[in-house]
Amino acid sequence: MNERILELLKNKNYKELRNELIELNEVNIADIIEEVDTSEAVILFRLLPKDMAVDVFSYLSNEQQMNIINSITDKEIEHIMNELYFDDMIDFIEEMPAYVVKKILKNTKEDERALINQFLNYPDNSAGSLMTIEYVDLRKDMTVAEAIKHIKETGIEKETIYTCYVIDGSRKLEGIISLRKLVTCDEDKKIEDIMNTDVIYVHTHDDQEMVASLFKKYDLIAIPVLDKEERLVGIITIDDIVDVIEQENTEDFQKMAGMEPTDIEYLDASVFTLAKNRIAWLLILMISATFTGRIIQRYEEVLQSVAILAAFIPMLMDTGGNAGSQSSTLVIRGLALEEIKTKDFFKVVFKEFKVSFIVGIVLSIVNFLRIYFIEKINFKVSLTVTITLFITIMLAKIVGGVLPIIARKFKLDPAIMASPLITTIVDAVALIVYFTCATIILGI
Amino acid sequence: MNERILELLKNKNYKELRNELIELNEVNIADIIEEVDTSEAVILFRLLPKDMAVDVFSYLSNEQQMNIINSITDKEIEHIMNELYFDDMIDFIEEMPAYVVKKILKNTKEDERALINQFLNYPDNSAGSLMTIEYVDLRKDMTVAEAIKHIKETGIEKETIYTCYVIDGSRKLEGIISLRKLVTCDEDKKIEDIMNTDVIYVHTHDDQEMVASLFKKYDLIAIPVLDKEERLVGIITIDDIVDVIEQENTEDFQKMAGMEPTDIEYLDASVFTLAKNRIAWLLILMISATFTGRIIQRYEEVLQSVAILAAFIPMLMDTGGNAGSQSSTLVIRGLALEEIKTKDFFKVVFKEFKVSFIVGIVLSIVNFLRIYFIEKINFKVSLTVTITLFITIMLAKIVGGVLPIIARKFKLDPAIMASPLITTIVDAVALIVYFTCATIILGI
Repeated sequence: MNERILELLKNKNYKELRNELIELNEVNIADIIEEVDTSEAVILFRLLPKDMAVDVFSYLSNEQQMNIINSITDKEIEHIMNELYFDDMIDFIEEMPAYVVKKILKNTKEDERALINQFLNYPDNSAGSLMTIEYVDLRKDMTVAEAIKHIKETGIEKETIYTCYVIDGSRKLEGIISLRKLVTCDEDKKIEDIMNTDVIYVHTHDDQEMVASLFKKYDLIAIPVLDKEERLVGIITIDDIVDVIEQENTEDFQKMAGMEPTDIEYLDASVFTLAKNRIAWLLILMISATFTGRIIQRYEEVLQSVAILAAFIPMLMDTGGNAGSQSSTLVIRGLALEEIKTKDFFKVVFKEFKVSFIVGIVLSIVNFLRIYFIEKINFKVSLTVTITLFITIMLAKIVGGVLPIIARKFKLDPAIMASPLITTIVDAVALIVYFTCATIILGI
Repeated sequence: MNERILELLKNKNYKELRNELIELNEVNIADIIEEVDTSEAVILFRLLPKDMAVDVFSYLSNEQQMNIINSITDKEIEHIMNELYFDDMIDFIEEMPAYVVKKILKNTKEDERALINQFLNYPDNSAGSLMTIEYVDLRKDMTVAEAIKHIKETGIEKETIYTCYVIDGSRKLEGIISLRKLVTCDEDKKIEDIMNTDVIYVHTHDDQEMVASLFKKYDLIAIPVLDKEERLVGIITIDDIVDVIEQENTEDFQKMAGMEPTDIEYLDASVFTLAKNRIAWLLILMISATFTGRIIQRYEEVLQSVAILAAFIPMLMDTGGNAGSQSSTLVIRGLALEEIKTKDFFKVVFKEFKVSFIVGIVLSIVNFLRIYFIEKINFKVSLTVTITLFITIMLAKIVGGVLPIIARKFKLDPAIMASPLITTIVDAVALIVYFTCATIILGI
């Protein structure tokens, strides 16, 4: 399909091209526009029927959006801005450089401009920054028939009509009603008698993570957003929440690998930003790890007298780190999904105690068999390594399971208690256990 | 609110209790039932009006569902099974032990039993295992008015009525139409003329991750599921996809921490399962790490002659591992969200080259200042450690950025190229670089 489009574009067969384009899904057209070069992109975009062009525009990358805005007339810009859903417009404006924003604002009406400025001021990652203003509002004294007529007349421009919002004269939210209920109810029933007054809602400054967890908990497809005076100012729809969920997960992945979280895509992020996000934690962990080095320094004579001991340091440190990271990852994820609460502290401790016992036994046996029988290491050294391995795994898993819960208890983000930090802590623990065992068993 | 419910329950004031309960959201009632003990849970459940009881049931944990099924009459079971959405019923049956399943199947009609068996046979994580059969089907020769009448009559029992499916006599999917379009269109228009024929759909055996990415790409709220003969057999709705997205993310977190993925919640998983999921990777990594140990063994004389070198091994290994994990995490996540493609290989290499250069310089300088001026380590040793640190960071970040893409290229899961494996690889690299630098600079 795409080859056909590209061929028609090359041959400047624009009439045929337009016919092919309008048969496609807007998302796929956007994909094609992303692939061609700048001038061709503008040609393709301008071939689209006006309404379709707006939808396609909302699916383009910021880079391509800017390219198009720079190439079309003020009148075309005005049309796009009028037809874009408000939340898509805000997302777009937020990413544009100042001169583009100026050009856009010039082409919007004064009252809308005020509204845009208000939306641009909502904090990043707040409910306000996610919401749209295109929703259906009803009055409680309407009948079902009147409500449906109202939806028929105004619904086309709304982002969703499947949940309608019942408000009073001062825009205070009184209830919600689904289109499903309206369609399946008697036409002469009053909205007031059938609306749902037990509404789940959020405020403009609530954090997006909290909003997403309400969607998950109550299986919502939209949620109303109220201002400080409890007036309805917008709604958030599920498609934006899906993006929020992925964004929050990405941030957790980044934090758990010891980075400052960012919502800029990897390939779009500047080298400087990427470096900056990574350096802080690397520095902290590097300096912490030198303390681990001190432990080795302190036991220098032990290493000098039984040099083979040094050869097992990487294995003990790595296995301890891995064992601890496994536990901390499960607990951090459980906390994020609210499957584990801080009150489950002792449940986690006991669980990790039992799991680490099994894991410790299995790994220790395999290790002993390997180094004593295959690598022919002296019995006492083999024993020292094996006992250290067992104790390290037990401690690593318990520490790894417990630290994220403690972090949550102290209102810290549990995600910092992930692999990098756990590894650093466990390394130190492993070495202390190792040298203590060595001095006892080998009698050094 | 919950305190009031618990007090009424204790005082056996059931009439008042029922009045309080019916004012609550079903999700919140389910939360309360989870908190009280077994016999109280059954009392609360039985106080609920029949329809509400079914909704509440679908939000309960498997444990509490089983407890209730074991305590109510066959007739009550029959009612719940009839009223549950089909996908919720399948999810529930899949988690129950055999004797409960038997009890349930005894209470369902024969044709439904056949359907249940068919659904239970869809592979885990397939579209078939997610879909529900409660959707609205229309014929293309209906008018809008007829379609709305049909929805009015049958819509109450459907999981969603917001997207309707147009099928022919043999149930082949001919198009879809949204309720929004039906409500905002002229009543005498034919469905055929206004339906959307460019339908995004999946097949029963497609993987849930692919289904979720279609929802994200096209901002869907439902998707039709076809069988091998292209007949419509069910639909998947967005609420189930939100769960799939979280489940896929959880699996990625688990794989990236070196564990077998599982969708059982941490607190529900048995100790044996948890241990089993963790041991395989720990064993592989433990044995790999012993090869790292061999490197130390080979350079025993170097360590013997300059014993202080051993003290920096943990810092070099840890920093290298952390630097590599940062890069691999970003790239693995980028691949999962389809922000990075395999064709971006060289873009990633160049980016990591530049980022690691900056990061390497900063860390090396800090490290040199610290160990030479503060720890007063001999200049040549300080230089050896610093140069090793720089080279290790460069290599770690490039290896970390590149391995996930290579894995994807070879159709392996990029998530295995995460922290544990990268750490093991980078440890070996770091030690080889370290001892090579040491022999050159210190002239050992």
